[in-house]
Amino acid sequence: MKIAIDVMGGDHAPKAQVAGALAAVTSYHDLEVILVGNEAEILDHLKPHKKISIIHTVEKIEDEDSPTRAVRRKKDSSMVLAVKEVKEGRADACISSGNTGALMTAGLLHVGRIPGIERPALAPMLPTLDGNGFLLLDVGANVDAKADHLYQNALMGSTYMEMVKKVKLPRVGLLNIGTESGKGNELTKQSYALLQHAPINFIGNVEARDVMDGVCDVVVCDGFSGNLVLKTIEGTAGALFSLLKKELTSSLKNKMAAGVLKPGLKNVKEQLSYSQYGGAGLFGLKAPVIKAHGSSDHTAIFHAIRQAKQMVEEDVASVIQKEIKDTNSVRVNE
Amino acid sequence: MKIAIDVMGGDHAPKAQVAGALAAVTSYHDLEVILVGNEAEILDHLKPHKKISIIHTVEKIEDEDSPTRAVRRKKDSSMVLAVKEVKEGRADACISSGNTGALMTAGLLHVGRIPGIERPALAPMLPTLDGNGFLLLDVGANVDAKADHLYQNALMGSTYMEMVKKVKLPRVGLLNIGTESGKGNELTKQSYALLQHAPINFIGNVEARDVMDGVCDVVVCDGFSGNLVLKTIEGTAGALFSLLKKELTSSLKNKMAAGVLKPGLKNVKEQLSYSQYGGAGLFGLKAPVIKAHGSSDHTAIFHAIRQAKQMVEEDVASVIQKEIKDTNSVRVNE
Repeated sequence: MKIAIDVMGGDHAPKAQVAGALAAVTSYHDLEVILVGNEAEILDHLKPHKKISIIHTVEKIEDEDSPTRAVRRKKDSSMVLAVKEVKEGRADACISSGNTGALMTAGLLHVGRIPGIERPALAPMLPTLDGNGFLLLDVGANVDAKADHLYQNALMGSTYMEMVKKVKLPRVGLLNIGTESGKGNELTKQSYALLQHAPINFIGNVEARDVMDGVCDVVVCDGFSGNLVLKTIEGTAGALFSLLKKELTSSLKNKMAAGVLKPGLKNVKEQLSYSQYGGAGLFGLKAPVIKAHGSSDHTAIFHAIRQAKQMVEEDVASVIQKEIKDTNSVRVNE
Repeated sequence: MKIAIDVMGGDHAPKAQVAGALAAVTSYHDLEVILVGNEAEILDHLKPHKKISIIHTVEKIEDEDSPTRAVRRKKDSSMVLAVKEVKEGRADACISSGNTGALMTAGLLHVGRIPGIERPALAPMLPTLDGNGFLLLDVGANVDAKADHLYQNALMGSTYMEMVKKVKLPRVGLLNIGTESGKGNELTKQSYALLQHAPINFIGNVEARDVMDGVCDVVVCDGFSGNLVLKTIEGTAGALFSLLKKELTSSLKNKMAAGVLKPGLKNVKEQLSYSQYGGAGLFGLKAPVIKAHGSSDHTAIFHAIRQAKQMVEEDVASVIQKEIKDTNSVRVNE
């Protein structure tokens, strides 16, 4: 199996990408990696390795670039070249920590949708108190979603959790502003009606305040709502840690007590971090395209590679394709 | 000035409501309060007071009640009677900690919309790191909002912050999933175009991860999105405090250090609490109707009363009515 990695995106590129790749090929004997980026910079962090090849390029898509324009114009960018390795069959999956919109555009354009999938969905795992995490989809690939799209998100999310995360009968919840069945806006009301008949373990509406308590394994929503939830979690955690830091350093007494608690506080921060959960999958494409967090360190990259590898091994795309086909024919016949 | 208070809703009713009312009439010489609820229970917490009158009733709208049905059927409920005091001119404003949906329904039905306002908006103040807070509207009164409604939310929010919170030229942001002008879904793109021409200090799009940093004074959104943000903040803060508690009590050493930090940790919790910011106003009605948080203590009730009093004194409803009329005529003439 071969996985292509864009080493030019993200805050710790290329060091984190190279180190993560090295750890992955060391752990998995059947894995080869293609690093795409500036060869000289890559070789600063890597001795030649028989399971790691390099595609040299210096062009880079920046975070500020307009996604569609960047993908069309920067044809030799590390991101576009990494995605094209998948398109042209030289890699089974690809990973980037760069511009999210550009990766979605490149994935859609070059890897392409699974037949029957109307809109891909971007799906990160987010932390829960029990450490199992939940899958949130969509967080921004499809911001004007229709009920049909949420139905497909539910199928894709459930399949992924079952096949890759080995959760039996994943509990799928619809993100809503109340738990009762009649709650919500037009989109969630219509989606609820569809999801009740989906071949999944649909548990009904879930509220944003309960998702971190682990009320379900998959949270389904439109891309605008999911993005709001993702960024509100990030902002609230950040604000809280700022307030804590201020209090814990406000006096010598506090500083000393905080010193004792340092490992515990670090533990809390880690339980809320993304790195252990891998990257956000762009679901609904013919092959795995994974967006790793911009702040990914080598551990996060390692987990993103492991995630891509499992998606390839379990052939998630084919299973999704079959399920979408089956449910479409059921719905046509109904 | 007279303010009617439903003393039967909320976790600490009627004690918190009675104590908050007593504190308010003691602080403000020109204020009278009408307490609506079970007289015997009220008198458990109150000696007869010349500025506090009681309307006795035993009927109550429960949190689980369907809002529309409850308001229509439970005509003698403490909430409906409190709202009717405003409708019939015996009170200038009313406050309840009970069923939010029912209060919105009762307000709309009995107090009524300001002419020109298409949809009322529910608007709580949420905490920021600098302690000033920001106004978020709407958080659930209008879940299928149109751009025109967001435009009106922006005007109402700006007016409130200027007149009641005394913020000069309040910075109004549009809640979105990116800060650039072209970002978002159909609703936010259309709203952005309208807001650019609004007679307010519109600062553009704001992201959910930045709102607690105090990037603006008013955050405008549809009711579904606002409710998600509100509940995600609540859920994330709750999850983080759970994790912290677990760590801080995991060993004797940690427990001792945590003991030293207790006042600091309490301080952090308080900075994130709603109570100092008053309740959520139901903006766009002819008179102030305030939803106090279900968990309100007497301090929160006191601040909600103060908030209602300021809204009456500044005659916010009339100012909003005038502004809506002015901008409507400008937009018709354009």
